[in-house]
Amino acid sequence: MLPDSVRIVEVGPRDGLQNEATIVPTPSKIEFVNALVDAGLTEIEVTSFVSPRHIPQLGDAAELAGALSPREGVRLSALVPNARGLERAREAGIRRIALFTAASDTFTEKNIGMTVARSLTVFGEVAHLALEMGISIRGYVSTAFECPFEGAVSPQRVLEVTEQLLALGADEISLGDTIGVAAPTEVERLIELLRRRVPLGRLALHFHDTSGTALANVVAGLSLGITTFDASAGGLGGCPYAPGAAGNLATEDLVYLLQRMGIHTGVDLGRLAQASAIIERTLGRRLPSRQLQRLGAASAAETRNRSATRGTSREAGGGDVAGDPAAGTPTRPR
Amino acid sequence: MLPDSVRIVEVGPRDGLQNEATIVPTPSKIEFVNALVDAGLTEIEVTSFVSPRHIPQLGDAAELAGALSPREGVRLSALVPNARGLERAREAGIRRIALFTAASDTFTEKNIGMTVARSLTVFGEVAHLALEMGISIRGYVSTAFECPFEGAVSPQRVLEVTEQLLALGADEISLGDTIGVAAPTEVERLIELLRRRVPLGRLALHFHDTSGTALANVVAGLSLGITTFDASAGGLGGCPYAPGAAGNLATEDLVYLLQRMGIHTGVDLGRLAQASAIIERTLGRRLPSRQLQRLGAASAAETRNRSATRGTSREAGGGDVAGDPAAGTPTRPR
Repeated sequence: MLPDSVRIVEVGPRDGLQNEATIVPTPSKIEFVNALVDAGLTEIEVTSFVSPRHIPQLGDAAELAGALSPREGVRLSALVPNARGLERAREAGIRRIALFTAASDTFTEKNIGMTVARSLTVFGEVAHLALEMGISIRGYVSTAFECPFEGAVSPQRVLEVTEQLLALGADEISLGDTIGVAAPTEVERLIELLRRRVPLGRLALHFHDTSGTALANVVAGLSLGITTFDASAGGLGGCPYAPGAAGNLATEDLVYLLQRMGIHTGVDLGRLAQASAIIERTLGRRLPSRQLQRLGAASAAETRNRSATRGTSREAGGGDVAGDPAAGTPTRPR
Repeated sequence: MLPDSVRIVEVGPRDGLQNEATIVPTPSKIEFVNALVDAGLTEIEVTSFVSPRHIPQLGDAAELAGALSPREGVRLSALVPNARGLERAREAGIRRIALFTAASDTFTEKNIGMTVARSLTVFGEVAHLALEMGISIRGYVSTAFECPFEGAVSPQRVLEVTEQLLALGADEISLGDTIGVAAPTEVERLIELLRRRVPLGRLALHFHDTSGTALANVVAGLSLGITTFDASAGGLGGCPYAPGAAGNLATEDLVYLLQRMGIHTGVDLGRLAQASAIIERTLGRRLPSRQLQRLGAASAAETRNRSATRGTSREAGGGDVAGDPAAGTPTRPR
């Protein structure tokens, strides 16, 4: 019932970095994106062509996109909010754009300053221009499960927005659990409705791990035939107001789960962790990815084993973390 | 296909606290356990009657157990390693014990100083005495998926140890993903084998969230008919060597998922968070539970909203965390 392989859309450089308080210098971003490609990621949303006044973290969009060389089999995309953004993206060599709306008006008004209907009108023009330029289009439907302002969102509403984005010419729609609250039953309900009208291959799922449910939701999506998932390297983009809190599903954690389930991703977990480490060094903090934390625990355990003996958990009847808690980390030699 | 209700076995006071570097004073533990009962938890493993030399964190087992008053419909249990521990537990008023072994010899030798076979011999004597005293028995099979020293563990081996513990008189066996590495496919494989020989009602699942897969594994267990899950309040017991790293599945996160899926637990999430806060104050650090982190983010957002306006994510086309990232937290008024 499970697919043999999964396509991962890496959103760390855009969705991750725009939600970090620190502005990452362009050379670090270039190194990061190249390392993501080296790790085997083939679809990467690298930036957003919005006003630097609004998102200073991505103010170097043109410079960054221009500095990334095209590689065989790799698609680098960028989010654009309007025709001006599209033009800037095209000039920087971008061949795939993302259009971002949501399934609830209050959220889109607060987030992009328009109702959903208005955003679709604006995007109609952008999409028309993009397709004429030979630029392909991905659409986002954020708040696909719950809106932080309006509460529960009906699957029927998500279907409507999805169909409207497809009608504009988007070839793929990413459905976002923006505030990270959904449970697998909700994923099932939504996908079961959507698949009556939309080919499954046109749908992607974008989870945030705020509630720790992201991987459970991925498995629900997989078992219903979804084979494209968004993720953010290192879990980049965790809520900056709550240190340690998780935001985007970490790509490492997604890759780990899929590998462990025997599903091919084409991504090398060790190299991916090296890519995330570039950003960890720049931001000067640990990213929330569980797999990165396990690697950190492994390093700590090695240091500890060299310097001290341990006794408290041994012969004790119940020490669940006796031994090396990080053993089994797939990127570590066994 | 999903059950209407789930039984949660709270292991925070034992499995959680024994893995914390700080020794929690007995009065705080008493307050903690009583608060867990107030939150609606009806099965709580409160301590372990092991030598204080080996686990000083639980050195107050007799005092703690003696200070907890029995409450209607609530079972307080304790881990015991041998006949001496059983006698101490009985004197302190404990009416249910847990026996802890594993599915791999290297792990049990390092953890409890015996092979699995030897542990079952020792436990045979303990179980005989316990049942004569009218004390009921829970069994643990740790490393049920992977051993940190031996690698993959065969489901057949887990079945053998499970059946041996049941033969000793245990009425329930908790299968542990001790190092938190399993994926849902492994849960399915194991349960599909075990249920040919063991009634599902005799099985519990005990996940660690080291890889972020715990809730995905819970859903796999639920869909196969498992209705008992272990969890630790606040995620207590996270690896002390890796700050922020997750250990036990947090009870709050489990309750959140189940509530969101419409499954009854009898647990009040807000009161549960209050119980965990008692231990957070004592330990002086944030516990890893996602739901506790969301509550923390909600408090931070409230403080922020009172003192400042925000602008960077607004009208920006893609700010996935625009608005209040903690909205929707079920324990917070909407």
